[in-house]
Amino acid sequence: MNLTMFDAVILANGSFPTHPVPLQVLHTAGHVVCCDGAIRSFPDADVVIGDGDSVPAQYHDRLIQIDEQEDNDLTKATRYCVAQGWRRIAYLGCTGKREDHTLGNISLLVRYFREYQVEGTMFTDHGFFTPARGIRTFESFPHQQVSVFNFGCVALSSEGLKWQCYPTTEWWQGTLNEASGATFTIHADDTFLVFQTYSAK
Amino acid sequence: MNLTMFDAVILANGSFPTHPVPLQVLHTAGHVVCCDGAIRSFPDADVVIGDGDSVPAQYHDRLIQIDEQEDNDLTKATRYCVAQGWRRIAYLGCTGKREDHTLGNISLLVRYFREYQVEGTMFTDHGFFTPARGIRTFESFPHQQVSVFNFGCVALSSEGLKWQCYPTTEWWQGTLNEASGATFTIHADDTFLVFQTYSAK
Repeated sequence: MNLTMFDAVILANGSFPTHPVPLQVLHTAGHVVCCDGAIRSFPDADVVIGDGDSVPAQYHDRLIQIDEQEDNDLTKATRYCVAQGWRRIAYLGCTGKREDHTLGNISLLVRYFREYQVEGTMFTDHGFFTPARGIRTFESFPHQQVSVFNFGCVALSSEGLKWQCYPTTEWWQGTLNEASGATFTIHADDTFLVFQTYSAK
Repeated sequence: MNLTMFDAVILANGSFPTHPVPLQVLHTAGHVVCCDGAIRSFPDADVVIGDGDSVPAQYHDRLIQIDEQEDNDLTKATRYCVAQGWRRIAYLGCTGKREDHTLGNISLLVRYFREYQVEGTMFTDHGFFTPARGIRTFESFPHQQVSVFNFGCVALSSEGLKWQCYPTTEWWQGTLNEASGATFTIHADDTFLVFQTYSAK
């Protein structure tokens, strides 16, 4: 993966990344949009989106205050990026604290892909999530750990993974797969979410 | 919640708990079953379940080796407990490392509830997950942060939460709710999963 291919990074208020991959994405990004209090972890961001409650005064010149309560700051930040024409978005800091937020943020990545045509990648300290649809080939390496989560597919199959994918109905059924070589391909009739580790097992 | 009500603790190989609540559950448990390498974090466990690859030799007297490859160590440990008649199980160390494992483990809690009638509670460093079905009242406190994830309900509603629950179709729709008082009640026609924080917002 080309880590400089993103139009923007959105930094959420979960655990600040420590792995070299998300850190490289953050430090080479053309634009960085922080969700509310995340600005404290990355004061170099261009813009802060949120209700401002947890944004220290010294960053108020960069604050875009959006009071609408229907959506969370991650969604507000995404809509801001889409309005700028930025659709290739790296999401950082979306996991690592409250697990219900982790679940919510991961599913929002799928929502943005479906609703806003955002080509989003969520980088964590362990690997990265990519939402996709239809037939899609992914770069990989032997023994890369892979999980494929089904979001609405009735047909789901794979080439290049140790175990054949199928239209799973439970999250755990999509976990613990493994890439065999330099690529793998998923064939699906709807949306799915792929997790790939940075390291081989 | 009575933290000593559990028949057994299963300690998985995610992040070892640091919050006082899961630590109290661990240190007051009558039985502790470790998943494979987790024994290194808690050498006082009664039993280690797994394929043994990551269990140091000094713990082999406590190792129950189960080579079956269909299920992971968390499921093998759960089946071991159920075979002992232990169905009130606290799950620790199930989150905090790979996010695909976190997703898998959370959904397995629901599977064990449905398939094995396990009354499981998963404790993390931030809060706890409880699977339930039908009409169920939960202890809470004002401003406790609550999320309710739908696992197959067509009807889903609530009393005692800031926002009314509904039969959500996306994970993020169930997040960011809040308890108003000492209890809240969920009314559902199938299974759901509740997350509650230890602290008020």
